[in-house]
Amino acid sequence: MAQLDYDSLRARTAPDPTPLPGAKKQLAAYPFGMSYPDPGNLPIMEAHAAMGEALAEVGGTPTVYPDTQGYPPLREYVARRLAQNRSMSVDPDDVLLTEGSGQAIHFVTEALVDPGDVVIVDHFVYGGTLWSLRRFSADIRGVVSDADGMLPDALESAIDRAAAEGRRPKMIYLIPTFQNPQAWTMPVERRREIVDVAARKGVPILEDDGIAEFRFEGSHVPAVASLDDAGVVIHTGTFSKIIVPGMRIGYLIAPRRLLETVMPIKGSRGVTQFGALAVHRFAATRLDDHLARINRVLRSRRDAMLAALGESFGDTASWSAPEGGLYTWLTMHENVDLVDAAPAAAQKGVTYDMGTNFAAGDDEGRSNARLCFCFNTEADIREGIARLAEAAIG
Amino acid sequence: MAQLDYDSLRARTAPDPTPLPGAKKQLAAYPFGMSYPDPGNLPIMEAHAAMGEALAEVGGTPTVYPDTQGYPPLREYVARRLAQNRSMSVDPDDVLLTEGSGQAIHFVTEALVDPGDVVIVDHFVYGGTLWSLRRFSADIRGVVSDADGMLPDALESAIDRAAAEGRRPKMIYLIPTFQNPQAWTMPVERRREIVDVAARKGVPILEDDGIAEFRFEGSHVPAVASLDDAGVVIHTGTFSKIIVPGMRIGYLIAPRRLLETVMPIKGSRGVTQFGALAVHRFAATRLDDHLARINRVLRSRRDAMLAALGESFGDTASWSAPEGGLYTWLTMHENVDLVDAAPAAAQKGVTYDMGTNFAAGDDEGRSNARLCFCFNTEADIREGIARLAEAAIG
Repeated sequence: MAQLDYDSLRARTAPDPTPLPGAKKQLAAYPFGMSYPDPGNLPIMEAHAAMGEALAEVGGTPTVYPDTQGYPPLREYVARRLAQNRSMSVDPDDVLLTEGSGQAIHFVTEALVDPGDVVIVDHFVYGGTLWSLRRFSADIRGVVSDADGMLPDALESAIDRAAAEGRRPKMIYLIPTFQNPQAWTMPVERRREIVDVAARKGVPILEDDGIAEFRFEGSHVPAVASLDDAGVVIHTGTFSKIIVPGMRIGYLIAPRRLLETVMPIKGSRGVTQFGALAVHRFAATRLDDHLARINRVLRSRRDAMLAALGESFGDTASWSAPEGGLYTWLTMHENVDLVDAAPAAAQKGVTYDMGTNFAAGDDEGRSNARLCFCFNTEADIREGIARLAEAAIG
Repeated sequence: MAQLDYDSLRARTAPDPTPLPGAKKQLAAYPFGMSYPDPGNLPIMEAHAAMGEALAEVGGTPTVYPDTQGYPPLREYVARRLAQNRSMSVDPDDVLLTEGSGQAIHFVTEALVDPGDVVIVDHFVYGGTLWSLRRFSADIRGVVSDADGMLPDALESAIDRAAAEGRRPKMIYLIPTFQNPQAWTMPVERRREIVDVAARKGVPILEDDGIAEFRFEGSHVPAVASLDDAGVVIHTGTFSKIIVPGMRIGYLIAPRRLLETVMPIKGSRGVTQFGALAVHRFAATRLDDHLARINRVLRSRRDAMLAALGESFGDTASWSAPEGGLYTWLTMHENVDLVDAAPAAAQKGVTYDMGTNFAAGDDEGRSNARLCFCFNTEADIREGIARLAEAAIG
């Protein structure tokens, strides 16, 4: 029988159909694209145990009768933790629990961005955010950075350029700590300058702060949101990285009026209450110990990564040396092309995210790669980086 | 300092801001709006135990490296169960795991509906679906039903009327089994007639089938999707009702071409892998026992509800007597207004969903209410219905 033609029914605003991904491929032997600690270093069974403790204590009512903004004790915990560790002042009523920070970014984009609206991002930036921005047909403008992050003058010029075209940018998306993928951290002075530009120009900042607590050296830098007295900073974070992925629990903290638009976008369907209970109990009882432990692991792996890069790449490339986080950013000299090198690397069991996956500016990123040091052991990092160098520079 | 004005930044397509809901109110003593079994009858700790078993067996890799369409063993399980219990023939590759059926409905609407597009629904229908349709500014047209569900002639007229306006409806949304809120079940002959209309007119059906397995009397009726050989039926279900809410695991089964549009709407962010593991293990080892047990509970509560309605309302109202599901549908005679009666009922500790929450047609539903019998004990049902009658008919 003739089959219904869904192409003729598709919404104008829907994305083009894309082939289904099919079965997940096996993980490579040296998967430098994995931006999570390896399962052996994730507190998976502990998070499960924490969920059981919480369920035994609170019973099932929260699972059938959830609070619309999310489990109140977890929202209170988030507010306390952000005050303590990120220097922020947060009312639990301004916290919305979300399915990871990705959903928070998606909702804020949905609330602010019409097709063609200008959104400002770093010239290399997290691909998941680029996906949300493209879903709403944003006009994405990448702004260049130095080792301290986005350049305030370049930001101001980008806003003025858009204004000269009659368009007020709808937001500035920032990952100010251990930026993804460039791995720099913006010092507090730079943060103040950026907030000042945003406030003067009336453009909100969406601060994505999900991995700031993976700091194993240096001092914490206050969140950008802590430097804001003009209601210009929207803040999101997630427990996916610092506890376990797969729970899908993050949060959005936004000025009240924006939250009033995001809530009807979200609808009344809550996040998983099982996840919220588990995250709350784990965070309240075990998170600081876990962070101390995982940060020792990450430091050792970062050291292995930096040493391996020095041995294998010498002066053919440069890379960042972050004080925390999950990855470094490789820049090849002499225009070595890491897109072209990828198949040869894969042959050797090495995979990575090419700079092109993050590019939002003029630089295509073909000479760049994000190399995660969080997932692989020190020995695998040494071997994998040696193999990558063979594939890239022979 | 002057605060940023978010109203001036809101997207044209964003919903209007609405006041935040604030703290969740205490549950009423007789909450007939609760469409889940009470926590004491939910297998909450068993689902938690099943999650632990699955995690111990598969380890953490699926939680950091999830399959984009969702945990493959659960997709295979869904395909097998739908073959067995809903007479459907499903390829696991055509299954997408979603955060409950609500997310599936939202994605399908996002894929098909531009502002002003016609969507056909029952004249009284699930409020969550109305919310998604309104979010995408659908032109919602309610079609009347009799005790066997949507009338095929009325459906055909509604499609023809839209066509005469130059508009092809984008979909027909159906809850053919234990319809929410009217509680009728469409017999197989009626299902065939509806599928025939949809196929002839080229309008897809979205079948929402989340509670069909709560049947405690009569014979299973095959899913509408099992009667389709024209690729016209999209199917969604959820484990929220038949296992536990708060896991946020449902599924969408769609013709390949539509799935290719839904996937880029969904993005690469998976559903909670903890939930998927728990649901898979629970379903494979405990679900049939649980359903046998909960269906005994539901039957007894339905009986209590029907008896209490007879005692308290006599011939001042009529109500459906479903062979399964979670609620009955009350229709007051003599234009008793259940919206007006709600404050007095609440004074007596009784809450319910008024018909107006479900209305999509000409009838405002002020004389109707959905009364859930799943959450309250038999004694509470008797007492609560007596109090409701006092409030409504004095």
